[in-house]
This record gives sequence, structure tokens and C-alpha cells, in this order.
Amino acid sequence: MAFTTNATIASFGGKLLKLTHAAKSTNCDMNLNLYLPPGSNSGKKIPVLFYLSGLTCTGDNCAEKGFFQHKASEKGIAVVYPDTSPRGLKIEGEDDAYDFGSGAGFYIDATKEPWSKGYNMYTYITSELPQALFSSFEQLDKERVSITGHSMGGHGALTLYLKNPTLYKSCSAFAPIANPINAPWGQKAFSGYFGENNTSKWKEHDATELIKSYKGTPKILIDVGTGDNFYKQKQLLPENFMAAAKEAGVDGCVKLRMQDDYDHSYYFMASFADEHVEFAAKALGV
Amino acid sequence: MAFTTNATIASFGGKLLKLTHAAKSTNCDMNLNLYLPPGSNSGKKIPVLFYLSGLTCTGDNCAEKGFFQHKASEKGIAVVYPDTSPRGLKIEGEDDAYDFGSGAGFYIDATKEPWSKGYNMYTYITSELPQALFSSFEQLDKERVSITGHSMGGHGALTLYLKNPTLYKSCSAFAPIANPINAPWGQKAFSGYFGENNTSKWKEHDATELIKSYKGTPKILIDVGTGDNFYKQKQLLPENFMAAAKEAGVDGCVKLRMQDDYDHSYYFMASFADEHVEFAAKALGV
Repeated sequence: MAFTTNATIASFGGKLLKLTHAAKSTNCDMNLNLYLPPGSNSGKKIPVLFYLSGLTCTGDNCAEKGFFQHKASEKGIAVVYPDTSPRGLKIEGEDDAYDFGSGAGFYIDATKEPWSKGYNMYTYITSELPQALFSSFEQLDKERVSITGHSMGGHGALTLYLKNPTLYKSCSAFAPIANPINAPWGQKAFSGYFGENNTSKWKEHDATELIKSYKGTPKILIDVGTGDNFYKQKQLLPENFMAAAKEAGVDGCVKLRMQDDYDHSYYFMASFADEHVEFAAKALGV
Repeated sequence: MAFTTNATIASFGGKLLKLTHAAKSTNCDMNLNLYLPPGSNSGKKIPVLFYLSGLTCTGDNCAEKGFFQHKASEKGIAVVYPDTSPRGLKIEGEDDAYDFGSGAGFYIDATKEPWSKGYNMYTYITSELPQALFSSFEQLDKERVSITGHSMGGHGALTLYLKNPTLYKSCSAFAPIANPINAPWGQKAFSGYFGENNTSKWKEHDATELIKSYKGTPKILIDVGTGDNFYKQKQLLPENFMAAAKEAGVDGCVKLRMQDDYDHSYYFMASFADEHVEFAAKALGV
């Protein structure tokens, strides 16, 4: 479970660690970035924000271009940037498409062969990775964890949060695939990982379905740009999520902000990263 | 002199314009990014910060990873991110090395054939580009301009500032090549662009030489990371610059900060971008 530290990079007064570890759930070595804010060796427990990346990305893109370290440094929050899928499993076709296989794990545990042999990002993110991190980095506070993500990672953040009400203190998302069972990206991924007709399984990983039966008081912030082409192409469907939240009587706990002219890029995320970290910080008690 | 707008991207409440224009001095079309802060069409004149990039970069890298827009948005400052050289002049060998030719214009006007046919980034940055910008974007305030840059672009910022005391209100630099005539990168570039024995010309573009005879009260901020490998390899030589400033009696006007553990990367720049924009903002009267 131990991590290899490939690099330690000074960033906003803290350190960005480039880590690798052998993961059982994904059946391969996994890379990730861990940002430790200033003072992380002072003996104080540090809350943690998981950031889940979108299609084609690794944990590197947002660490470089997302600007989360800026406010995380100020608030004293660690940020975890995992990869988006297993890599190099030698499954036929795993590198053929940008929206399925490598870089497109969709934060589910695949039930269909051959993908089930390692495409288990749900277990990796909710269980194996946090266990490894909390065991290796004792300053990280496993009682204070929040989650955020972008696009496919926004889908991941929402579904992992809604399925695990005690695991995360809050959830935010940038341009999430909020209703994948009704969007081309989600339909392709769920067909491939779960099977075309396995709709009951599909619904278990659809944020819009999950919020309908959510018990409790969720804390969710979502930003979507009105200039986002994937929003226009109905890959994201945040309105469906809001309608379901309303149906469930929890729409008062979900803030959806449509941001004028913003696109799907890291320019969009960088512009609102401070606010998403502040949203998490409040839920994490810092 | 007109610009073509290839894209308009929402960023920190303002707009990042991806521009192209035909430039005479560099003998080719030049790409650049222009960040216009919020409210830039309100009729108020907007001060301008030129950011000069380092070796291998275009105007894109810092616009994506430098986070200058964060504070520039707040302060109401436009940021110009030019390219680092002409491109595609079909000069033999122009793409052979990362530190000479394409991506390595060094902000000089080459005197040696064949480079003199377009490697004139000094004229481009100090004259042609600002004239084109101020003519096309009337909201930009040509009376309030500052300059900053990274590595080769830090050399550019320092030398353009010191050679043109009335053009810029302040200068800052990240890990600048502060004494190129005594550093391998500078020696290679100046040999190629000016000729091996043209040392009088070399000195005209060496910040350490220029500060010796600077008349007036410069406003200069320099950050260098102590973990910067190029600093360790003596490519940057900020101490020589400080010694020369002291010799000239202006060291009180130059702030050199050695930043613990920081490297040469955009992680380093992002960490201090807010402070460099604030330094410029003060000089620009905002």
C-alpha cells in the first residue's frame, strides 16, 4: 500500500507530491498527485478534498491548470488528484476511444468482461486509495473529506457523494455529466462496462436517479458554463438533476449556477476554483 | 495591423482573446493572447501588463498555467502574452534546438544573417505589437504599461525595461536570465544572433550590464526559486545583477527574493503571480 514519491514540487507555500502506488482494485500501478498545504507537518490533522478529473485527463491536468492549490493553501486543505482509469491492462481496445477505456473509467466498478478485471474506479476512489493515503500520510484527517470533480469527474463526485452519505462532508462539480443514462457519453460507457440492458445497474451510477432517493440534507454546488459545447450537446443535463432534486424535496440543498459564456475548459474551472474550495472548506469546518 | 480573433474564452470574469496578426518586424504572422479584465468595455482606460515567456513556450502556456488573470481581473489590468519568436521563416536549423531559433527569440533584433530576416523580437515587443494593440483596442492605456516575464522572458522584461525607461512603469521577473553574456544560454543565443565576437552588442542586451548605467529609480521585483536547476547550473545569475545594481547605487530599487525550494516551473510562477500583478498594479496606479 506504500507510495513511491516521484517528485516533490513547491506550490503556493505547500508541496505537490507526484505519487505512484500498486492498486489491487485497478490491477495496476496508479499515479496521483497529492497537494499538502503549508504547515502539514505541524501535527494538526488536515482535511482532504478529492478532485476527480474528466475524460482524457490524468491527475496532472488540474494540478497544473485548475488553480485549486491557491485557496487550498490558504485554507489548509490537502487536495488529492487521482487518475481517471487503470492504465496498461492490455485489454483489447482500451486505448481506442477518448470516451471509453483508458482515461475514461467513469468511477464505476465494471461488471462486464474484460473490463471488470481492473476498471474498478469506484472501489479505488471510495476505498482503496483513501485507505492507502490515510495509512501513509497520518496528518490527513479521514473524518473530514469532501469531493469535487469536472465533467466525467463531476459525475464521479456527485455519484460517489450520493451513494456514500457518511464518506464526504460536501460535493461540488464543474460541468458534471449529471444524468449519464440519458447522455451519449454515459450510455456508451455504461453499455461497455455494465452491459447494454443492465439498466438497473446504470441507475445505481446516475446522479439524477440517485438524488431522487437521497435521505438527508445534501450539500452540493454545481457550476456549468452557458458557452459549454458539451452542455449544448446535452451531455451534461444539469436541469434533469435539478428537477430530480426538486422532486425529492432537496433542491434547496443543491446550488446550480449557470455561468455566462464559460466553456468546458480549465479556464472555466480556474475561474471558480477558489469558490469551490471555499464551499468545501465551510463543510470541512475550516 | 488588424488582429484576427481566433477564440474568445471566458476567464476570471473577463475575456481571453486568442489573436493573430501579420507582423512586419518578425516577417510572419504572430499569435498572442490578450486578457481583457471585466468591465473593459466600460469606456475606462485599462492599464496593460506585458508578460514575456521563456524558452520553448508560446503565449499559451502562461495564459493556462500562470494564473496572472486571477489578480489582473481583480485589479482591472489587461495582460498581453506574446509568442517567443517568429515561426515558420524556413531558416535552416530554426527548429533544431530548444534554446535557439523558434521559441527562443531572446527579445533582441538579430544582426547576423539569416536570423536578421525576422528574429527581431525587440522591435516587435517594444514597438510593433504595442502600436498594433493600442490602435485596435482603444480601451488599452498606452500611458500605463508594465512588463514581466519568466526565464528568457525575465531577461526580456529586464532588458526592455532598462533600455526604455519611459515605456514601462515597472518590471518584474521570475527566474530571469539576468546576466546572459556570462551564461551558456545567453552566450549561445547572442553568438548566433549577433556574432561570436560582437561583445559590445551582447552587452546592450544584458540586464546586468544595463543596470550599471541606468539613470533614474528603477522599480524591479525578481523571484528565483532555490530549487531551480537552471539557477544551480548558473544560467540565471541573479546575484550578478544585484551586485551590479549595488555598484550603480540602485540596489534599493531592486527586490530579489530567493524562494525556498521553488523550481523553474509554472507551479513556481502561479504561486507568486498574484504578488507580481500587485507589484505592477501599484506602479500602474490601480
